[in-house]
Amino acid sequence: MMAKTGTAVPWKQLLLDALDSNAHLKHSSFFQLATVGYNGRPSNRTLIFRGFQGDTDKIQIHTDSTSRKIDELKHCPFAEICWYFTESWEQFRIKGRIDIVDGSNPDPVNLQEREKSWFARSPRSRLLYLDPGHPLVDEESPKEVSIDPSAGPVDAFCLLVHDPEQVDYLNLKSNQRLTFTSRHKVNGDKWWTSEKINP
Amino acid sequence: MMAKTGTAVPWKQLLLDALDSNAHLKHSSFFQLATVGYNGRPSNRTLIFRGFQGDTDKIQIHTDSTSRKIDELKHCPFAEICWYFTESWEQFRIKGRIDIVDGSNPDPVNLQEREKSWFARSPRSRLLYLDPGHPLVDEESPKEVSIDPSAGPVDAFCLLVHDPEQVDYLNLKSNQRLTFTSRHKVNGDKWWTSEKINP
Repeated sequence: MMAKTGTAVPWKQLLLDALDSNAHLKHSSFFQLATVGYNGRPSNRTLIFRGFQGDTDKIQIHTDSTSRKIDELKHCPFAEICWYFTESWEQFRIKGRIDIVDGSNPDPVNLQEREKSWFARSPRSRLLYLDPGHPLVDEESPKEVSIDPSAGPVDAFCLLVHDPEQVDYLNLKSNQRLTFTSRHKVNGDKWWTSEKINP
Repeated sequence: MMAKTGTAVPWKQLLLDALDSNAHLKHSSFFQLATVGYNGRPSNRTLIFRGFQGDTDKIQIHTDSTSRKIDELKHCPFAEICWYFTESWEQFRIKGRIDIVDGSNPDPVNLQEREKSWFARSPRSRLLYLDPGHPLVDEESPKEVSIDPSAGPVDAFCLLVHDPEQVDYLNLKSNQRLTFTSRHKVNGDKWWTSEKINP
């Protein structure tokens, strides 16, 4: 199945391999997400990769619905992930569009994904969405658990789904650079082409 | 002198301390810079910190004058640096404006800074600006030196000077969050205020 996905989305296997070879580093799942604010100026912050959505190429992120980036994304849904792997010296720049999935999302499939994301978190880390403030690496919270582990997502819990449109890959060890571009078929399916770039 | 600078620019000492405590990691000088493209969408890439300009709070970056970010910055000079220190778990988000200093810059002080930046690089790493393509971690280039080490900057060498306006600091070990905001005095001098934020 991995191989099948890797073929359909050629950069995904590269990313899974990078995650694998950097897995011993806690920060290997951290990337920087750039968005554009109301004033037309860029914003940039570190976020945590929460996995691909099913076997698609869509990237999941968790955030608080009261955070400023939600407002920014409502205004301009485009975002670029910059993900640098410090051990393997690989950089992925992933341009795409972000869907905001909060409790009011009209799509039942989205709501199901949000619920899956909620339960994929440790009960302790779910607590963050009950508190004001939004620490970045929330697993470090020293608070005691006081949440019903079977209770579904709270209002503040928001799933962001980043749908990649273009990926720029740079490997500084092999000095290899690749650009992946998505197209849409008539039936709406996405397919990817890749191109080797002179680094 | 460090202490004096630290007082005038309260976040600078925090950043110098972070650089110090992460200095054993090659990637500690890497940050992500977000800009806005012509289409109003964000871009994000990893760049290398090349030091502060003199004893100011301005951040220097080197780049090739033919890179796409130059066009983007001419269109919109605002940029946000996101700098995550993987060892000390500190994040600096630095909003500011970027000045592009290439060989045609009318300000002799800027040109002098550009020349200083050029000579601060190893002769081998200067070669990159003679070649097409712009590897990120250019010191790794396997090419042989064939440049006159006393020759000044080539046309393609460009100094970017990021002038910070707001800094958001987050320490994930101490769970401390601070926001620093700049103001300008009547005489044009910049001064900074800081505020503790509930993380």
